[in-house]
Amino acid sequence: MSTPPNTSLYLRACFREPTPRPPVWMMRQAGRYLPQYRATRSQAGDFLSLCKNPELACEVTLQPIDLVGADVAILFSDILVVPEAMGMELGFFEGEGPRFADPITCAADLDRLGRPDPNVELRYVMDAIGEIRKGLAGRTEPIPLIGFTGSPWTLATYMVEGGGSKTFSKIKAMMYAQPKLLHQLLEKTTDAVIDYMTAQVAAGAQSVQIFDTWGGILSGPDFEEFSLRYIRRIVDGVARVAPDGARVPVIVFVKGGGQWLEKIADTGCDVVGLDWTVDPADAVARVGDRVALQGNLDPCTLYAPVDVIQQRTRTMLNGFKGASGYIANLGHGILPDIPVAHAKTFINTVKESTSGG
Amino acid sequence: MSTPPNTSLYLRACFREPTPRPPVWMMRQAGRYLPQYRATRSQAGDFLSLCKNPELACEVTLQPIDLVGADVAILFSDILVVPEAMGMELGFFEGEGPRFADPITCAADLDRLGRPDPNVELRYVMDAIGEIRKGLAGRTEPIPLIGFTGSPWTLATYMVEGGGSKTFSKIKAMMYAQPKLLHQLLEKTTDAVIDYMTAQVAAGAQSVQIFDTWGGILSGPDFEEFSLRYIRRIVDGVARVAPDGARVPVIVFVKGGGQWLEKIADTGCDVVGLDWTVDPADAVARVGDRVALQGNLDPCTLYAPVDVIQQRTRTMLNGFKGASGYIANLGHGILPDIPVAHAKTFINTVKESTSGG
Repeated sequence: MSTPPNTSLYLRACFREPTPRPPVWMMRQAGRYLPQYRATRSQAGDFLSLCKNPELACEVTLQPIDLVGADVAILFSDILVVPEAMGMELGFFEGEGPRFADPITCAADLDRLGRPDPNVELRYVMDAIGEIRKGLAGRTEPIPLIGFTGSPWTLATYMVEGGGSKTFSKIKAMMYAQPKLLHQLLEKTTDAVIDYMTAQVAAGAQSVQIFDTWGGILSGPDFEEFSLRYIRRIVDGVARVAPDGARVPVIVFVKGGGQWLEKIADTGCDVVGLDWTVDPADAVARVGDRVALQGNLDPCTLYAPVDVIQQRTRTMLNGFKGASGYIANLGHGILPDIPVAHAKTFINTVKESTSGG
Repeated sequence: MSTPPNTSLYLRACFREPTPRPPVWMMRQAGRYLPQYRATRSQAGDFLSLCKNPELACEVTLQPIDLVGADVAILFSDILVVPEAMGMELGFFEGEGPRFADPITCAADLDRLGRPDPNVELRYVMDAIGEIRKGLAGRTEPIPLIGFTGSPWTLATYMVEGGGSKTFSKIKAMMYAQPKLLHQLLEKTTDAVIDYMTAQVAAGAQSVQIFDTWGGILSGPDFEEFSLRYIRRIVDGVARVAPDGARVPVIVFVKGGGQWLEKIADTGCDVVGLDWTVDPADAVARVGDRVALQGNLDPCTLYAPVDVIQQRTRTMLNGFKGASGYIANLGHGILPDIPVAHAKTFINTVKESTSGG
């Protein structure tokens, strides 16, 4: 089955169909490195208010399309809106990151967690998706919209730790000492995520990415049991067909997951996202015939002078030659102090290439 | 060439000779989880004063031998004493970690860095080694002393960032934008480290471990160019024979280096240290016939109840069956809030096993 001829480069690459060049976008492309983002955010107030304002969330989602030339729009939101919708009080503190007021510590805490109706508790996300699709309509080059979620394991790390962590002592203590409790938390979170992803697709997301930011802190067997198992349930459970009948590709990105690419590809996802520690040619050899690949320039490369960015980007593109489908991206989110011109250099270097599959 | 019959389990395992059971120790085993360590430290004042007091450094080095039964003593010190001896002002701040007052930012900063004489500027380390060897003498079971260093890349991250970092933006910006400057810094640091390791061996260290805590944040080619190349120089440059004629095995531990085990084994080291994300059987299959292996229980496992620690430790030991040489350890340093009884359970479970090579 081949996609219609007017399908975006991105969707064609996801389905491993030939493209004249690879599509390109950047994780966290709607972000603080853009002065226009900072302006919109200060208009919204804080970070969470920006997530919850569909018009402004739409505005920042569209900025990198128009300002740096990304081929794909990714919904502006945060992975932690799901635990918040499940009933956990969430705050974002400048320089400190997110904080849950009452982390999960015991079985009784699980009873506090509800199964949100995404069209009610997360209505603002669905409204933003509708706005963004309107904003993307009628462009010469079709720009698809990607929705996203955190993986249940990654969401659970924040729900148990209360915020970011260096050692992840609390969630790991729960994993080793109370694995059943953790599985119950992961089950509840997985149900909420499947509902949320299904609603995003119904609202207009044309692809979805599952971010497993913290899968890489686990041993192989624990990654399988506490993270990948639930990612697989989401890949199986989310609607893979959009309201207009188009197929909806699923990307799975596990930061630090380079040792487990085969297992990640086996989830049934369409695209495996790679961080920069993974050698592109190695990834192509291992799973490039089964899934499309996405990534993987070190975001810190964009601190370099323009000629180094160009050279590093070309080396990356060469490494992915031979992939049956390939989407150029960074290996993690773009950092807030990157010059906009450097982000453009990355995007333009991909656009000037001809290394599409 | 086989080692003398009264050689420790540890040294025999390093040289891939048969042992009735694997030797066992724990990274950061002289640490805050021990009440006796906390008592000695408060006597010394701050952390750095403890490092610089040979009698007290000896005392805390010996504590885990007597209190939890480790088969190996590892010098109590800090990797950052080398940059300090090179001329950088170092402070440790409670809850914040180490801080250099004037991080390296430009070529002029390199001129500030000297090549320390380890028997002068780091005399206190050599004195501690002498004290520890005296404290270990005459035991029924021979307990060897391991010295250590940070890898040049890992030392450079602290010297450039000024302290710990989440994104490593500064050192990476230097790496991508001013690679020559970074290579100069790494050269200077490597020279200092080789002198320091040579002095440690002359003073009585019977083995040395190179800690590359931050090698895993690099792409494969950058790891090769900015970290592994300098580790190889140290492995080549350090004296491999002790004053008494005994061979001095070198361990290389790269946290997050699971994708590069073959390359790490190729440095010529005797032992490759593994973090817990690496599958033991996979490591055995990849490099277990060329080097001894060390590791790799997730330090957070020690939060679990005793029966889970036992079961997880046995699973790990089973995974390493088939290694030509094996040293049981954690996959990273023991955490400060681990119950002492749980550390003992780990050690004793290894001691009760018979899975030596």
